[in-house]
Amino acid sequence: MMPKPEILDPQGKAVAAALGRLGFGQFGAVRQGKRFELTVEGEITDEVLAAARAAGEQVLSNPVIEDVVAVYADEEQPA
Amino acid sequence: MMPKPEILDPQGKAVAAALGRLGFGQFGAVRQGKRFELTVEGEITDEVLAAARAAGEQVLSNPVIEDVVAVYADEEQPA
Repeated sequence: MMPKPEILDPQGKAVAAALGRLGFGQFGAVRQGKRFELTVEGEITDEVLAAARAAGEQVLSNPVIEDVVAVYADEEQPA
Repeated sequence: MMPKPEILDPQGKAVAAALGRLGFGQFGAVRQGKRFELTVEGEITDEVLAAARAAGEQVLSNPVIEDVVAVYADEEQPA
C-alpha cells in the first residue's frame, strides 16, 4: 500500500534528504507506505489473493489517499 | 520492513479482528510494517539493490525491532 502519486509525501522527502546525507545519494526520491502480511491456513489460491486485495482496498487502506500496489503469496512463511 | 516476529503487534491483532468482523475471516493473523519505494536513475543493478538493502537496514528501519524482509526491483515505474 502506497500513498497515491498525487499525494504530497513530506515524510518521503525528509527520508530522501537523510539518505543523501548518509551516503545513499543514488536514491533520488523515497516514498513510504504500509506493508501488511495476512496469514491464511491452507493453499494460497487466486480466490485468497483476490480476498487479500479486497481486504486491502476496503479495510486496510484509505482509498482516498492510498493505492494497493502489490498483492503476492509468500509461501515460505509457515502458515 | 516488518516488525521482528518476537515483537508484539497489537495493531496487527486489532486489524485481524476487524477483518474477521467485516467478512474476511479467512485471514488468521495480520502484521503491519512499512514499505519504501526508492527511486534511482538508470539500471537497477545488484549493487543498487545491495545499497537499497543497506539503506533499509541502516537508515529506514529500527534494527532493534524491525527486519528488512524484501528488496526488489520494480522496473515498471518510470525512473
